[in-house]
Amino acid sequence: MLTLYHAPRCRSTRIVALLDELGARDQVSVEVVGIPRQDGSGGRDPRNPHPEGKVPLLVHDGVEIWESTAIALYLTELFPEAGLGRPVGAPDRGRLLSWLAWYGDVLEPVMVMTYAQLDHPALRATFRGMEEAGHRLSAALSGAPYLMGADYTVADLICASAFQFAPQYAPDAPGLADWVARCADRPAQHRAQRYDAELLEAAGG
Amino acid sequence: MLTLYHAPRCRSTRIVALLDELGARDQVSVEVVGIPRQDGSGGRDPRNPHPEGKVPLLVHDGVEIWESTAIALYLTELFPEAGLGRPVGAPDRGRLLSWLAWYGDVLEPVMVMTYAQLDHPALRATFRGMEEAGHRLSAALSGAPYLMGADYTVADLICASAFQFAPQYAPDAPGLADWVARCADRPAQHRAQRYDAELLEAAGG
Repeated sequence: MLTLYHAPRCRSTRIVALLDELGARDQVSVEVVGIPRQDGSGGRDPRNPHPEGKVPLLVHDGVEIWESTAIALYLTELFPEAGLGRPVGAPDRGRLLSWLAWYGDVLEPVMVMTYAQLDHPALRATFRGMEEAGHRLSAALSGAPYLMGADYTVADLICASAFQFAPQYAPDAPGLADWVARCADRPAQHRAQRYDAELLEAAGG
Repeated sequence: MLTLYHAPRCRSTRIVALLDELGARDQVSVEVVGIPRQDGSGGRDPRNPHPEGKVPLLVHDGVEIWESTAIALYLTELFPEAGLGRPVGAPDRGRLLSWLAWYGDVLEPVMVMTYAQLDHPALRATFRGMEEAGHRLSAALSGAPYLMGADYTVADLICASAFQFAPQYAPDAPGLADWVARCADRPAQHRAQRYDAELLEAAGG
């Protein structure tokens, strides 16, 4: 049994979109929970088993799976037919794993530092900055529509989500805006946005 | 063909130790390159193909694989016989993926923020802090010697490496120090340290 702990319009929305892309939306029970919001509203929900009250959290037959990139990779392995991942043994499997790790290791810290207007030599030494992140994405997109080449993968879904969520921080890098638009314009993304809007409306938000 | 771009006594040392744990040390050619060091010494090495001059970088038959956690996961999939990972389909595969993602998404940013003495509500909202990181590790280690249970895995190798590298930032959490010591005391870790010492000595460092 698969359960996704989800809150609308936050980091777990992309997992709802991914389940749709994978054709697995009806195989997962979604538990909508509250989370603390940046504006001070909301709060930790006792129904959410995540030890820090975060979403997304996926529970598969009792095993908790946390962190968006781990959940995303796990789901592409569980539902390989959609071709959104790369199976173990595929020549470019390592590249897909690298993009997913890079999102969490580099892109998200850089986004948060940009939002918080923090700078420090140790941050730059470890994460570099938004300009370098833009270069990495642009280089990958210079000869292809998606990060892994001709086909849309979970690497695009995860990496582009940063700029769908906070477009104001997207660096001015060649090809980046078009790629973000391409990734945002997928039917599964529109359905995930509508689902969130309905949840918020039902909650009177 | 497998090539690891490595610099002694930094984030790539754990990959040398991992290759040893996997029994794959002789199947990988190690290219020792320079990197910029925190003390201002060293610098970017033109022989290192990483776009930002970082290590580790693994190149497998021409495909670049970057970010330590992606390299570590990839290598455990490439050399599964050692049992350091969890194969696709294993019931606790998602837990292993979560620990690896958590290291890069949470533990490393928290370490860098602690070192740089930075605090900000946005950082805490995203990453929480060292105390919460310690709680997570302690909870996992409360009934088992290793993060995944009875056996040492790549999750331990990666997560414990943070505290081997910077023991002064380890939170005071039950079981943590013993676990770090257990992970540091493995023959592969001692050999990786000796290898680095020899590289530095040969370079006159």
